[in-house]
Amino acid sequence: MLGNLFPLDSSKPFTDQEKIGHNRYHPEIPPVATVKPGDSFRVDSREWFDGDIKNDDSADDILNAPMKKVHGLSGPFRIEGAQPGDLLIVDILDVGPIPQEQGPLAGQGWGYTGIFAKSNGGSFLVEQFPDAYKAVWDFHGPWATSRHIPGVKFEGLIHPGIMATAPSAELLAKWNAREAALIATDPDRVPPLALPPEPEESVLGSVPQADRERIGAEAARTAPPRENGGNQDIKNLTKGTRAFYPVFVEGANFSIGDLHFSQGDGEITFCGGIEMGGYMELHVDVIKNGMELYGVSENAIFMPGRQDPQFSEWIAFSGTSVTLDGEQRYLDSHLSYQRAILHAIDYLATFGYSPEQAYLLLGAAPVEGRLSSVVDIPNSCSTVYIPTAIFDFDIRPSADGPHQIDPGIGAPKAADPVYG
Amino acid sequence: MLGNLFPLDSSKPFTDQEKIGHNRYHPEIPPVATVKPGDSFRVDSREWFDGDIKNDDSADDILNAPMKKVHGLSGPFRIEGAQPGDLLIVDILDVGPIPQEQGPLAGQGWGYTGIFAKSNGGSFLVEQFPDAYKAVWDFHGPWATSRHIPGVKFEGLIHPGIMATAPSAELLAKWNAREAALIATDPDRVPPLALPPEPEESVLGSVPQADRERIGAEAARTAPPRENGGNQDIKNLTKGTRAFYPVFVEGANFSIGDLHFSQGDGEITFCGGIEMGGYMELHVDVIKNGMELYGVSENAIFMPGRQDPQFSEWIAFSGTSVTLDGEQRYLDSHLSYQRAILHAIDYLATFGYSPEQAYLLLGAAPVEGRLSSVVDIPNSCSTVYIPTAIFDFDIRPSADGPHQIDPGIGAPKAADPVYG
Amino acid sequence: MLGNLFPLDSSKPFTDQEKIGHNRYHPEIPPVATVKPGDSFRVDSREWFDGDIKNDDSADDILNAPMKKVHGLSGPFRIEGAQPGDLLIVDILDVGPIPQEQGPLAGQGWGYTGIFAKSNGGSFLVEQFPDAYKAVWDFHGPWATSRHIPGVKFEGLIHPGIMATAPSAELLAKWNAREAALIATDPDRVPPLALPPEPEESVLGSVPQADRERIGAEAARTAPPRENGGNQDIKNLTKGTRAFYPVFVEGANFSIGDLHFSQGDGEITFCGGIEMGGYMELHVDVIKNGMELYGVSENAIFMPGRQDPQFSEWIAFSGTSVTLDGEQRYLDSHLSYQRAILHAIDYLATFGYSPEQAYLLLGAAPVEGRLSSVVDIPNSCSTVYIPTAIFDFDIRPSADGPHQIDPGIGAPKAADPVYG
Amino acid sequence: MLGNLFPLDSSKPFTDQEKIGHNRYHPEIPPVATVKPGDSFRVDSREWFDGDIKNDDSADDILNAPMKKVHGLSGPFRIEGAQPGDLLIVDILDVGPIPQEQGPLAGQGWGYTGIFAKSNGGSFLVEQFPDAYKAVWDFHGPWATSRHIPGVKFEGLIHPGIMATAPSAELLAKWNAREAALIATDPDRVPPLALPPEPEESVLGSVPQADRERIGAEAARTAPPRENGGNQDIKNLTKGTRAFYPVFVEGANFSIGDLHFSQGDGEITFCGGIEMGGYMELHVDVIKNGMELYGVSENAIFMPGRQDPQFSEWIAFSGTSVTLDGEQRYLDSHLSYQRAILHAIDYLATFGYSPEQAYLLLGAAPVEGRLSSVVDIPNSCSTVYIPTAIFDFDIRPSADGPHQIDPGIGAPKAADPVYG
Repeated sequence: MLGNLFPLDSSKPFTDQEKIGHNRYHPEIPPVATVKPGDSFRVDSREWFDGDIKNDDSADDILNAPMKKVHGLSGPFRIEGAQPGDLLIVDILDVGPIPQEQGPLAGQGWGYTGIFAKSNGGSFLVEQFPDAYKAVWDFHGPWATSRHIPGVKFEGLIHPGIMATAPSAELLAKWNAREAALIATDPDRVPPLALPPEPEESVLGSVPQADRERIGAEAARTAPPRENGGNQDIKNLTKGTRAFYPVFVEGANFSIGDLHFSQGDGEITFCGGIEMGGYMELHVDVIKNGMELYGVSENAIFMPGRQDPQFSEWIAFSGTSVTLDGEQRYLDSHLSYQRAILHAIDYLATFGYSPEQAYLLLGAAPVEGRLSSVVDIPNSCSTVYIPTAIFDFDIRPSADGPHQIDPGIGAPKAADPVYG
Repeated sequence: MLGNLFPLDSSKPFTDQEKIGHNRYHPEIPPVATVKPGDSFRVDSREWFDGDIKNDDSADDILNAPMKKVHGLSGPFRIEGAQPGDLLIVDILDVGPIPQEQGPLAGQGWGYTGIFAKSNGGSFLVEQFPDAYKAVWDFHGPWATSRHIPGVKFEGLIHPGIMATAPSAELLAKWNAREAALIATDPDRVPPLALPPEPEESVLGSVPQADRERIGAEAARTAPPRENGGNQDIKNLTKGTRAFYPVFVEGANFSIGDLHFSQGDGEITFCGGIEMGGYMELHVDVIKNGMELYGVSENAIFMPGRQDPQFSEWIAFSGTSVTLDGEQRYLDSHLSYQRAILHAIDYLATFGYSPEQAYLLLGAAPVEGRLSSVVDIPNSCSTVYIPTAIFDFDIRPSADGPHQIDPGIGAPKAADPVYG
Repeated sequence: MLGNLFPLDSSKPFTDQEKIGHNRYHPEIPPVATVKPGDSFRVDSREWFDGDIKNDDSADDILNAPMKKVHGLSGPFRIEGAQPGDLLIVDILDVGPIPQEQGPLAGQGWGYTGIFAKSNGGSFLVEQFPDAYKAVWDFHGPWATSRHIPGVKFEGLIHPGIMATAPSAELLAKWNAREAALIATDPDRVPPLALPPEPEESVLGSVPQADRERIGAEAARTAPPRENGGNQDIKNLTKGTRAFYPVFVEGANFSIGDLHFSQGDGEITFCGGIEMGGYMELHVDVIKNGMELYGVSENAIFMPGRQDPQFSEWIAFSGTSVTLDGEQRYLDSHLSYQRAILHAIDYLATFGYSPEQAYLLLGAAPVEGRLSSVVDIPNSCSTVYIPTAIFDFDIRPSADGPHQIDPGIGAPKAADPVYG
Repeated sequence: MLGNLFPLDSSKPFTDQEKIGHNRYHPEIPPVATVKPGDSFRVDSREWFDGDIKNDDSADDILNAPMKKVHGLSGPFRIEGAQPGDLLIVDILDVGPIPQEQGPLAGQGWGYTGIFAKSNGGSFLVEQFPDAYKAVWDFHGPWATSRHIPGVKFEGLIHPGIMATAPSAELLAKWNAREAALIATDPDRVPPLALPPEPEESVLGSVPQADRERIGAEAARTAPPRENGGNQDIKNLTKGTRAFYPVFVEGANFSIGDLHFSQGDGEITFCGGIEMGGYMELHVDVIKNGMELYGVSENAIFMPGRQDPQFSEWIAFSGTSVTLDGEQRYLDSHLSYQRAILHAIDYLATFGYSPEQAYLLLGAAPVEGRLSSVVDIPNSCSTVYIPTAIFDFDIRPSADGPHQIDPGIGAPKAADPVYG
């Protein structure tokens, strides 16, 4: 174990740290450290809004979340000898929150889930939920609870939202071209179709001053997952996972960030999962020429860890690709998952949750989202599975009707939008 | 247990049986039997092509599969006292294949998976796989193996592709209207966008002769899942499952069919999963006014059984919503799942499988498909998880490169298309 | 699949069937059929008391259970080519109850659990529970419930109590010698220390009349597990299991019997688990010289199936090797498991169960018994784990105290002992 | 979270720390800290031999292990308001190794497993393994590997061997009386039947000097589990576990120690599991009058965490209560577990492991030991289950015979005994 190669001081912003990470992808961002195949090392990670979201009962910070700043990534780490065409092996030795140093949560951590407002990012169900909301989660050992969503407690599935290798110049150019073409189809859309390069608020590690303007204008935003892995938000990349990433530049230039204490499949509220600052311990290795050997052109392959919390009873909801207005779409799995989620929210609401509480819960808890049927023309069928054990009351349907909970103070809503 | 309320003779076609089922949905199809809340009963089920697909080494039957005949459903069963607005509880007490009576598989069963040709239905990856292929699976107790796909053996996830209540007249009219509107956007598309009512080959149970023409012209096809459940192809509806269906007509008029010995999430080859004839044992009950009590407007809710085969190691592939041609789409989870599946096929091919063998395997084996990220504009991220234990060789990536299997006789391909 | 090689008519006793099995072990009992390595076949099995225990509310049949008749085994099956020193591979393709043909349980089955009286066998806690009790269990698909033990419902772990190869003459002689030596240490003990050969009520298959007296006087009783497997009562020998048995005679001469719908580890009530008649489907093969190759001298090796019901929450009790009277014993794991079970009974009793209901439940439900610590002189520590999901109320400790159930009619107790 | 209430400096012995713990049980040992019901706190823990066992290739330290020093426990912690008759709730928020500060394992930890020599403690199979051996395990994130046992790698089941409340004076007197009576039956036995109070090397926290002699002569040794929990060595007390302990003195006076990175059921080698120094984070609460409310007179109740590593394939061995010499014992589950373990060792040896390597592995890896049958007179049947996934080669029996590993340097053996 080489020790902490990317230490962060929780009291300082991302740009004032001893080592400066990056929040854009570009092949010319220099490594912060070099490791060898077979090495293990520790890395700290900032929460994705770099501390701007507070542990309080207001969602104004979610409404005004600084989207241009995300995601502050730790790295890049150069792996000696890795070359384009190789597969980078990454074993997740550990991943966890950084404990608070003082206050009532001293020794433990906290995180949050937000519903992004339509005016600032939007979410999976932006039409039904156009306003900003927030829920704060407290961590107690393996468990999370929230004063904003009573009646639930669950073990975390701690994982990085982002692990990524650096793109080559050719790959970056391809990204910029195809995303620009998409944006051009509806450039004024709210929320936007995609995010173009944005020099403002860009953090580019130790890129020399002379190159910053150029690189800031070329470098890709970190929101989408792409060929290099990136913001895949795969909730199963937990401790014990072995992942394989394509290498596009000499040294691989691997980075991580956007840690979550837990997340439901889809990260549906966008400011989703349970966002937190934390740390990872990683072991790296290389399969020479692995991309050709194993037919890998892009995206991560992974073998999930075997210590995710086990649940043996689930309640599941299904949806099809018909819009809420009754329009039939053709095999639209995105829509069918939206409908399944909406059905789950309707169901949870009969127990006394507000729709926003239910939505935030489904974004944060270890729920599974599955593509159950993708061929039964014209309807795709998607399903969402909620573990019943996360509730401290009986969530199953019965002739008695739903048990009524006390929704408590509820999930705070932001004041009227002021952003943009 | 009331005994077998829908016995089938495996030597006779669906239309020559003692009790006649149905292959269309319509509120006027009379029940074949009435049961009470709390009753248990057994039902036989025909394989979805009613015996037209043979246990041989040719895929011509897949190419010419009689799409107008599907799905031969067992039922409807009227549940006494069930009324519109109730929730029908269905417990799956058992589901299994009907053993062969003679021949080498006597006492066991078999099934098949097909890739539909573009000219006759198409599949999830119709552009990459336009031709018809078939794989035959033999059942050995809990396991399936195939002479067409060597090196794999897995426990079945036996389940019904279809469980459904009858639509009301209003609901049926809504279906027909919205599907017709979709078809009208591209009426000559191959494969079609949706299937309109089709009197030809319709089987309508004991509908009186005088009404058959009218009802055949109104009745909905069974391919898509809809508000009444239907062809959801949810692989987790296994023994021990409790499902809840909305009731739209007096008596609920519940039917089942399209049994699968196993299936991967998505039933990606369309003629998918492992299709088989079989039986179910069901227990039914009713939650009065359950739709309002639990906020259920449509689609099934379910609690999966706890006896699905357990796997503790998976290899997973991810995809994003960029087309193979490099075009960026906006949060298209259908596309990102296609890309994940294509990555898995590329991977499996390096071990010596043909792409078609790999595709058929992913359609039939207990693979999981997940909507991992649905908000990271503009890319959705979907993932597919394959249990490593189904292979009799080491499927994991290593520096040694992929172990080379003997692909055997391969999956048979159909002769040139003659259908249509 | 060779079909049913050992069909039983449920309306007739074991000795009046088409093929006659055996209830003693002896190398000279002829096979009922010969199969080849690689063959699959079906076998019926009688419930261990051959129908003497009734589905009623009296435990008199348990009190008077005919111990000399047990266990009616199906077989032996000769495996062609198997020779002493080989390992016999047995795959459990299926195992299940034989459905009732008529009455309220038509199409389903039932079984029972009994506490043996001290005067007729006794049980694990014979000093605390000297009297005979019974609970009848109804099967509903995968689940069992009992009118004698309300508030619980669980999925079965269907398995054979007995699978066994035939002993060689030498091995049989060894058994008889060592068991006689044990009996001789306290020949009048109640319950007995062991059961010597017993010609009365012996069933010896097709042994010629002339040999019956001799063989009946030599043949080993089936109660204990021994080098040949036998009555191991391992609850995890469920569908999908592969087991390996040492071969001691030419042909292996393999038999099965004593099927259970479910059982807790230990089969603690002796007339334990949920006893039932049923069937098995088996696949057999041989590893030549496998005993030497793999260092196997005796007893079964097995790889359990992967479809046992999954539970993710358990409540567990521990015990140590101190007697109820406070005497310290030395590393006595049998005693520490007794104490753990007694603690569990005490606990369940606070919810309203009678001690006998609790004891019967722990014998029948899928509870796990573990040897947690066997070295911490002088106390062994054993633990018993009960899945919380089998109760329809909350079984966990809380500040509210135990929920009080209605114990219903309770578990019937036998009248005063009349046996012996 | 109250912070670390029992910090330890890894460079100093147990008796030179800032807070002094205890290695004997006595009601008069004063608490090191007081917490309230509902509090959470952190505790460090010394490895059970206080650093005397080295990370080297000699087992001399195991041979000479200082048995009188064990176990150095952290605590007692007084829980305000807890009174005799209450149940103490202990939630395990976290438990882990303390990382090394420098050297090749910096940032990770290590541990060891030893076979105790007959002359110094002995083990479960002391007659077969009379000599001292050692294996050192390195920790890599969730995994352990050993240079002394090649070919295996497994996720840890990190847990405390000991959690205990303090005995009352009456309870302590009872322990001393019954254990003395046992010792008196064979006072010179090697290894001893039990360990009497031993003032030498006793550590009694802040007991006043004037009381030390008396208390040292009365206080109970920590080796055995007893009514207060204690050295139960239950491998399932992992993160996320909720345990319940009887309270015998005002304040409960709760202590912990003897942390293991992993352990097989039974801790069969005695110096067993993977011993390590580490830390725990605990949350405590109280159920007033819980002992009576829930019928708890003694020993821990617990609900294991749901994040233990999941394995879906096991190879299992069975044993019965016949001695190696062929003597029949009566329902001796201790013996039947010994025989099952010996069978497993014989099996593993055919792959190339030395018997000592196999024995150490079964003591350290997450193997399950079950009391499968405890009533089938005269033979008890115990079983041991090994997860196949811990081996990097195929451990299953096949016609090919066992794969031969390179046993490497093997497990070091101690020089001739010098102790005692």
